[in-house]
Amino acid sequence: MGVGYSTCSLSSSLTHTSRFASITLFPHKSKSHTNPTSKFSQNHHQNSTKTTMSQPSSLSFLAVKCGRVEEIKTQEENSSKPMSHVHGIDSELLQRLVNDVLVWSSLHGLLVGDTNVQRSGKVPGVGMVHAPFALLPISFPESHWRQACELAPIFNEIADRVSLDGNFLQHSLSRTKKVDVFTSRLLDIHSKMLEIGKKEDIRLGLLRSDYMLDEKTKLLLQIELNTISSSFPGLSCLVSELHRSLLNQYKEQLGLDSRRIPGNSSVSRFAEALAKAWTEYNNPRAVVMFVVQPAERNIGGQAIAVIYFRAGYAPTDYPSESEWKARLLMEQSSAVKCPSISYHLAGTKKIQQELAKPNVLERFLENKDDIAKVRKCFAGLWSLDDSIIVKDAIEKPEFYVMKPQREGGGNNIYGDDVRKTLLRLQEERTEEDAAYILMQRIFPTIAPTFLMRDGICHKDHAVSELGIYGAYLRNKDNVIMNEECGYLMRTKVSSSNEGGVAAGFAVLDSLYLA
Amino acid sequence: MGVGYSTCSLSSSLTHTSRFASITLFPHKSKSHTNPTSKFSQNHHQNSTKTTMSQPSSLSFLAVKCGRVEEIKTQEENSSKPMSHVHGIDSELLQRLVNDVLVWSSLHGLLVGDTNVQRSGKVPGVGMVHAPFALLPISFPESHWRQACELAPIFNEIADRVSLDGNFLQHSLSRTKKVDVFTSRLLDIHSKMLEIGKKEDIRLGLLRSDYMLDEKTKLLLQIELNTISSSFPGLSCLVSELHRSLLNQYKEQLGLDSRRIPGNSSVSRFAEALAKAWTEYNNPRAVVMFVVQPAERNIGGQAIAVIYFRAGYAPTDYPSESEWKARLLMEQSSAVKCPSISYHLAGTKKIQQELAKPNVLERFLENKDDIAKVRKCFAGLWSLDDSIIVKDAIEKPEFYVMKPQREGGGNNIYGDDVRKTLLRLQEERTEEDAAYILMQRIFPTIAPTFLMRDGICHKDHAVSELGIYGAYLRNKDNVIMNEECGYLMRTKVSSSNEGGVAAGFAVLDSLYLA
Repeated sequence: MGVGYSTCSLSSSLTHTSRFASITLFPHKSKSHTNPTSKFSQNHHQNSTKTTMSQPSSLSFLAVKCGRVEEIKTQEENSSKPMSHVHGIDSELLQRLVNDVLVWSSLHGLLVGDTNVQRSGKVPGVGMVHAPFALLPISFPESHWRQACELAPIFNEIADRVSLDGNFLQHSLSRTKKVDVFTSRLLDIHSKMLEIGKKEDIRLGLLRSDYMLDEKTKLLLQIELNTISSSFPGLSCLVSELHRSLLNQYKEQLGLDSRRIPGNSSVSRFAEALAKAWTEYNNPRAVVMFVVQPAERNIGGQAIAVIYFRAGYAPTDYPSESEWKARLLMEQSSAVKCPSISYHLAGTKKIQQELAKPNVLERFLENKDDIAKVRKCFAGLWSLDDSIIVKDAIEKPEFYVMKPQREGGGNNIYGDDVRKTLLRLQEERTEEDAAYILMQRIFPTIAPTFLMRDGICHKDHAVSELGIYGAYLRNKDNVIMNEECGYLMRTKVSSSNEGGVAAGFAVLDSLYLA
Repeated sequence: MGVGYSTCSLSSSLTHTSRFASITLFPHKSKSHTNPTSKFSQNHHQNSTKTTMSQPSSLSFLAVKCGRVEEIKTQEENSSKPMSHVHGIDSELLQRLVNDVLVWSSLHGLLVGDTNVQRSGKVPGVGMVHAPFALLPISFPESHWRQACELAPIFNEIADRVSLDGNFLQHSLSRTKKVDVFTSRLLDIHSKMLEIGKKEDIRLGLLRSDYMLDEKTKLLLQIELNTISSSFPGLSCLVSELHRSLLNQYKEQLGLDSRRIPGNSSVSRFAEALAKAWTEYNNPRAVVMFVVQPAERNIGGQAIAVIYFRAGYAPTDYPSESEWKARLLMEQSSAVKCPSISYHLAGTKKIQQELAKPNVLERFLENKDDIAKVRKCFAGLWSLDDSIIVKDAIEKPEFYVMKPQREGGGNNIYGDDVRKTLLRLQEERTEEDAAYILMQRIFPTIAPTFLMRDGICHKDHAVSELGIYGAYLRNKDNVIMNEECGYLMRTKVSSSNEGGVAAGFAVLDSLYLA
């Protein structure tokens, strides 16, 4: 008998068992006096009536109000691509899909803190809302998917090799250092480690390399390599599970094969890598420490085997000198840092651009096939002292993106702003140009997509970005782990004037191999 | 790199892998300028510092703010039982436990809709909060636990046998019918089925029998038998999992053995029973229909094999004649009803009281051992036409509970109100007395407990109620399933003037076999 908590546990566990429908005959708090008996055929026998529900044509009374479906009219709406009946889904089926994915997300922890709820993010378990995600997986060519997976261990190795080359890091970032205070502080710590000859015998990298598929050239091009705080290994696994579950449940209606969504075990692989690093540290009494942004729990008086930085990548993570002192102290310690200061620096955009220069990859990789594979995924990358490119970018800014050294996406410069910024920098003749790199603008395929956010389904044209997780662990003598560890697919409304999907209205997604 | 969703997926998945601590060095939005380096020992070597965290005495800076721990001073606080250091848990450990259970609940779907959030309960996946639950399992004697489990299949059988005895149901409830409109409407449907000779060849019961352990007599006494909409099979399983996980993770600190929390598979067993009923109906194109309270989804034009009533037990579920017509129509259909109208009536308090009369159990059970087992768990139960008992209850109302026929708990009458109500009924000389039964008041053990609600941990004295789920399925010829299916433990602050725990500040719990 009901204490009145709203919960869906039972019915949802059941949906996998056989075929289920649910119907509201007892509309609590509803004043509609429509007749539920009209929902059944009137073919009464003396002892028994075959109960059937009515034809779809008269479904309005029972139409679902769970998960509002909203259409956002965008500019693309008027263009050549028709938005209606994406994947051949009619509105009734859409309502059911929307309801089911929202229930699934509550039952399986595909949740984030709702910033509209005051205590959310401060008190766990309070003010939760489903994570933003795409209703269905995005179609993605299998060959490009395999290409991205193959690159993971190679980028793992590059990050490790670059991290060992202190001079390369210091030299490449020397101009950036002058104009970017944050990078400068990181380089200071790095310098101190070089001075004291600090060696990192056990090195752990939990990376994510992000790619977009350029529509015209059909090339998979790298957006960036994340070496610190690679986000969403947990939620990305859940979205893959959600989509597989949905495709199984609606096999007949959607006609999609859930086996074409690749398995995604990034969270357990990352956990495995951290555990192995802990084992390698070889102190059973030591703990793994997570450095995080919001206030969290603490254990007193314990040795630290592994330090995982879930924070520390943004200038705002260091509001005072204390945080810098702590970072330095951790770097000095014997704990395995994930990442070390060198790994952190190896993931900067400047280093990405330096690696794209001729003959630089060759410093860090021996295998020619590997070098060719990596170079193939490099988009055009230039420093702002390349005057020919700067001239071209001023003339055709739509083909370039200006990226500041600063992390976190959302700070990139697109379109006419590229031209304006470049002209201003030329005029001012300061060293500020060293704070940016120029990158070829990638034009990924735009596809009609259902985006779920805050319980509402939006239909819009969207672009996607694929991230491949990689884990690397080695000690003095051997590589212990060098693996591709699953993926993150993010999808974003394309009407935004930004080319990247990391910022703005991005939702989590999975991929459907085409 | 972080798009700023707050999520705990990674770190929580990791907590099972090895030993973890987390620490906030980058207090976003915090203005405290305390020195995080003081959290580490200052034992710097040239190349390497063993990083350790500070002693508990200086933990204030890092002290956790996740999950506020609040003490509620109750009257019991001043009594003989000391509240402090329940289970020997100090405040720092408590903070960690509280944080971990709250994170666990978000990640594993131990969630309900937060009634403070407007769209919660209407839109799934929005406005979720952890379900209210006890931080730790409640200690419960193993012998009584086994006794309750053994009773499950017997009560399943009783409910089925009673449901077949139309005359017994009509006769027992004849006086209740006159004063309780809701029961009267159910009996009308039941009468119609008797008239047309409706047979339920396939009968499915998903029941829950609720018990309290009387402290003085050490007797396990039945509170009620639920035959419709037995709630919480899903959440109760999750709480058991949560507690097992917590006891494993804090094995050293708590010194409790997670294996002493019994396995709980109620949700999958109930799903299995529904699936088996669907199979028994033998129409692969037919569906299982859930009758629910809030508006939900719908599938058009499909035959119904099984109707599960998650609603329909309360008068408010029938706001108009339409709902009663629908209920009648469903009863007339060949679909397997869970419950049928007969099962529904078999779960009324009046029938519970009738079964407790001498020689009534013998009408429904043959096995003498079974009869003895059932009778042993019957509390004193009387109708209000028992003048000796009514006289006694007026003199000693503290030993009685008056229960109205109405379902849902929270309507029971305790203490001096028992005396007042009985005197009023005697004076008025109407038939209203037939709307109540009298029950022996049970005094369960009061134990200090941590209750989690809305992200806050309350420490209080509490009492517990154990529910045992049972599933019963048979066709014309055979019993297909007659099983105990797991449990529900609910714990409630004992300072309430109510003896039962179904209503009010009840939280979900599990049990620890003592």
